[in-house]
Amino acid sequence: MHETYKISSVSKNGSSLLVDWNDGEKSTYNFLWLRDNCPSGVHPTARERTFNLLTVTENIHPKSYEINPEGMLEIEWSEGDHISKYDSKWLRHNCYTLKNKESYKSPYTLWDNSMQNSFEKITIDYEEIISGDEGLKKWLEQLHYLGISLVKNAPTEKDSGFDLLKNISHHRETFFKTPFQVIDIPNPNNSAYTAKDLRNHIDLPYYEIAPGYQFLHCLINEAAGGQSIAVDGFRVALYLKENFNDYFNILLNTPVKFVNRDYTANTIRVMHAPLITLDRNNDFNDIRFSAAYMGVMDCSPDKMDKFYIAYRKLLELLHDEKFEINFRLEPGDIYSFNNRRVLHGRKEYDPNSGERHLQGYYIDRDEIIGRLNFLNKVNP
Amino acid sequence: MHETYKISSVSKNGSSLLVDWNDGEKSTYNFLWLRDNCPSGVHPTARERTFNLLTVTENIHPKSYEINPEGMLEIEWSEGDHISKYDSKWLRHNCYTLKNKESYKSPYTLWDNSMQNSFEKITIDYEEIISGDEGLKKWLEQLHYLGISLVKNAPTEKDSGFDLLKNISHHRETFFKTPFQVIDIPNPNNSAYTAKDLRNHIDLPYYEIAPGYQFLHCLINEAAGGQSIAVDGFRVALYLKENFNDYFNILLNTPVKFVNRDYTANTIRVMHAPLITLDRNNDFNDIRFSAAYMGVMDCSPDKMDKFYIAYRKLLELLHDEKFEINFRLEPGDIYSFNNRRVLHGRKEYDPNSGERHLQGYYIDRDEIIGRLNFLNKVNP
Repeated sequence: MHETYKISSVSKNGSSLLVDWNDGEKSTYNFLWLRDNCPSGVHPTARERTFNLLTVTENIHPKSYEINPEGMLEIEWSEGDHISKYDSKWLRHNCYTLKNKESYKSPYTLWDNSMQNSFEKITIDYEEIISGDEGLKKWLEQLHYLGISLVKNAPTEKDSGFDLLKNISHHRETFFKTPFQVIDIPNPNNSAYTAKDLRNHIDLPYYEIAPGYQFLHCLINEAAGGQSIAVDGFRVALYLKENFNDYFNILLNTPVKFVNRDYTANTIRVMHAPLITLDRNNDFNDIRFSAAYMGVMDCSPDKMDKFYIAYRKLLELLHDEKFEINFRLEPGDIYSFNNRRVLHGRKEYDPNSGERHLQGYYIDRDEIIGRLNFLNKVNP
Repeated sequence: MHETYKISSVSKNGSSLLVDWNDGEKSTYNFLWLRDNCPSGVHPTARERTFNLLTVTENIHPKSYEINPEGMLEIEWSEGDHISKYDSKWLRHNCYTLKNKESYKSPYTLWDNSMQNSFEKITIDYEEIISGDEGLKKWLEQLHYLGISLVKNAPTEKDSGFDLLKNISHHRETFFKTPFQVIDIPNPNNSAYTAKDLRNHIDLPYYEIAPGYQFLHCLINEAAGGQSIAVDGFRVALYLKENFNDYFNILLNTPVKFVNRDYTANTIRVMHAPLITLDRNNDFNDIRFSAAYMGVMDCSPDKMDKFYIAYRKLLELLHDEKFEINFRLEPGDIYSFNNRRVLHGRKEYDPNSGERHLQGYYIDRDEIIGRLNFLNKVNP
């Protein structure tokens, strides 16, 4: 049963109303905040705020207020000849006093090489995903919480990745086109298009925001070698923070230059951003790491010595086997991962030993989280 | 004639080489930095760094160094049996000591309503753009420096905006599809799809990164009303900074919640970010403003009173006629603007007075800047 809270009393307190709840909690509601969120000011289908805050001054205040017989907070405003009615459940849900008392819980479960023995946690069957919302939700949870998922037994027809991914949303287009083809080609514009080994990296670090998720759909894998590698960059960043805090702080505070001059695109991409960023909760936001695309570092000379030592340490940890898992992609696998958290790599393969063909797709992180919010009926 | 610099002398200085130039400048080059940027460690076509920094320790240093007869800095390393040769021109261009002495110059030219009398600065003919790189460059410069451009005399066939935009790059897809149709529809999922006035806003503020540029291609405009409005949000932010610095700082430091629950998409999008953000040079980065999509504010109760006063002031300035320009879109116009800088709005129109049909496109900011870098032969 959903717990219901009732308002015990309301009083004025400077520029806010102070609400006492029947369970002892207290909330403050700023006058402009209240007026701005009056339920009457929302478009019925577009669900947008239609109320224009400029129709009132910053001095607006309740001329009178009361708890009406339905238990709603009813306010008659000093301006605009307007009465607002707020449901107590809505007030409680949106109480910013209480929201700001809650401690932050990270959605991320970090992992290291012990995941090698728990592949079932990051594996899901294609049929399970397309058979309904429960399967889709499970997959999106693997992607959002663990940052990695291996979809098994997908079709192996060309471009059939679209059939699965459209269950999430549209894709993120890039100059590599969609899907991009991971095969061995002459004069490659990217070393992914060779048979060489690829050290652990994220894709497209020279974009203002690199694609949120990457999907590598294995169609054919008859070549010897080419084992895939994955590392949880957030786990490595935590290790760095706990064991080399100075280095962690240097990397957090030093924008790095990434450059792309793809010879097939008439474009020169340059982006400065730190290798590790945090979000507003000080949780991990991005690992932006690709030695291949790091431009010539141009931070201040005072910082360069420290930066390079810290950078080399991060590079070392990101290739430390205590954090790496590895696996061989089979035809019908769709290797899916948070491209701004999980670094991917691969071992060299022998292009003469058999064909190897992956097709790649990107989808932004907004789409993964937004779809999961919808399936979880999140009330933001 | 390109000025050439010569190295006068080189000496060791702790973990760096100290270079004296013939014009009196001095540069320091960190050992790891030098080793990491050895020209031999780059893939010939992919232009990626192939050198692996983990093949050397953090203690690597020059066993010997000299200026060779070609004027190059030649280093024999203490590890790896390797000799590196650096062109002096390259060393000078990439000298981070000198780079960090240069003061930052903003690429942005800010504007207010006086632009109303200088429309030629932000106008360009369609033919000029498609006739060659000079026209394209001029258009991209309007977009990048001024944040706004009115393309005149474009074709008015449906979807013909693609013909122009492909000169830049691929587009940024969203759930509105591409192109999206700005017309009056029943049960709109967005108030843009009504005939009502739209207050100044940016599009899609609930995305982690809202689309960088928006292109509104006018196919038909026979309706009375519907005047377009534009405001340089960076100009307004500067005014706020200069005249209401406390408010400016509050807005800079308070993440705001944006929410989208489009009823046509099975997604709930929630994003927290400040209304104004700066870049690493303290230049303006983003104005993220849409009253329509602002969720119920949830900052800390200590900040709420101040936030709402500052927010209302920004709202006021963003609709102050001293900053607004306005114009009527004609068929064949492509109204193009930096969606994370320039706010757009429109006046109400009468849907019974005639047809009005715009088609909209988005392209990310990376693509505008990257293409301009290419046309300007930028050497990053």
